[in-house]
Amino acid sequence: MPTKSTRVPTHASTPVKRRPGGRSARVQDAVYSAVGKLMATQRPDQITVPMVAELADVNPTSVYRRWGDIDALLEEVAVAAFTREDEVLPDTGSLEGDLREWARVITDDIVRPHRTRYLRAMVNARDGVVLDACPCWTARREQLAEMISRAHTRGERTPSVEQVLDHVIAPLYHHVVFALPADTAYAERLVDDVLSMRSAESR
Amino acid sequence: MPTKSTRVPTHASTPVKRRPGGRSARVQDAVYSAVGKLMATQRPDQITVPMVAELADVNPTSVYRRWGDIDALLEEVAVAAFTREDEVLPDTGSLEGDLREWARVITDDIVRPHRTRYLRAMVNARDGVVLDACPCWTARREQLAEMISRAHTRGERTPSVEQVLDHVIAPLYHHVVFALPADTAYAERLVDDVLSMRSAESR
Repeated sequence: MPTKSTRVPTHASTPVKRRPGGRSARVQDAVYSAVGKLMATQRPDQITVPMVAELADVNPTSVYRRWGDIDALLEEVAVAAFTREDEVLPDTGSLEGDLREWARVITDDIVRPHRTRYLRAMVNARDGVVLDACPCWTARREQLAEMISRAHTRGERTPSVEQVLDHVIAPLYHHVVFALPADTAYAERLVDDVLSMRSAESR
Repeated sequence: MPTKSTRVPTHASTPVKRRPGGRSARVQDAVYSAVGKLMATQRPDQITVPMVAELADVNPTSVYRRWGDIDALLEEVAVAAFTREDEVLPDTGSLEGDLREWARVITDDIVRPHRTRYLRAMVNARDGVVLDACPCWTARREQLAEMISRAHTRGERTPSVEQVLDHVIAPLYHHVVFALPADTAYAERLVDDVLSMRSAESR
């Protein structure tokens, strides 16, 4: 998973594993940072490779060679932005407490205007593709599996990882990309709903 | 609701109420049709007012005067495409049967490539806005209210309209715009989940 080793310099606080070294890393940092700055003021569909290259002070050819096109670059930066390495997984002693805290943190994160722009950029970059899974959810799946496994150890009845993705994460992202209101109260209502479902495992 | 009186000529089979008459209707038909054709081959962010005007054989000034900008036009066409006047609401005798059939029809509709493009165009047009509600859901809300009301008359326990929107419609649309797999089996699983929830009304 190359995307897991990348990071957005303005969001991650510590270096991560498998990060490219030397000149390659400097180019990546400069390019990611340039994308982040452009995202703050431009619509994703207005951002071009030459704009990124100029702001990053690198040769456009280097950008094309490494990322192929602007959509692939925006996608990679977006995925990196959703895979924060500094995030602490909640451990409150109950799955309800864990999921509420986890959903609140995600909501606060994705409603920020520049993060919403990243999400819309991902939608935009999806034209003509069908994915088996959204790479931005890999980290979310792992976090959910851990929280649910802890709940099982405590003897709690739980929804499945897929149910939490479908009924908490998907509606939150849907609301954000379609510009519908999304706040922590909404996130907590989704958590209540999923916890009141019959578990997929018991079907 | 002006959007309810509009239609996409290639999808609606019958004329609808409050449709503008005469020259205004001809311009609208030509412009909607041009947007539909462009959507089949272009990314939404590549479609411009001059392109639409040329294909529709109308003056670009008329398009700007009536719709303001390309995003407003794309949005209106998308909303019209989601408000089909020829759709028959399922009435199977149980809410489970109704919701399964309803979700299957919606899924088959939104996974078609040109419909997916409309959806992504809507996401694209959302930049810088926050809505109280997505106008594309007005018809869905009314349909759900009717199916749920019939279920109450039969004495069935039901989820709320909001719960079905959050847990069936939102994940379906989320999957489609993010290019994740969505089929009728997935839609039916979402319906099973929402029917197994504690109703929001009984909380």
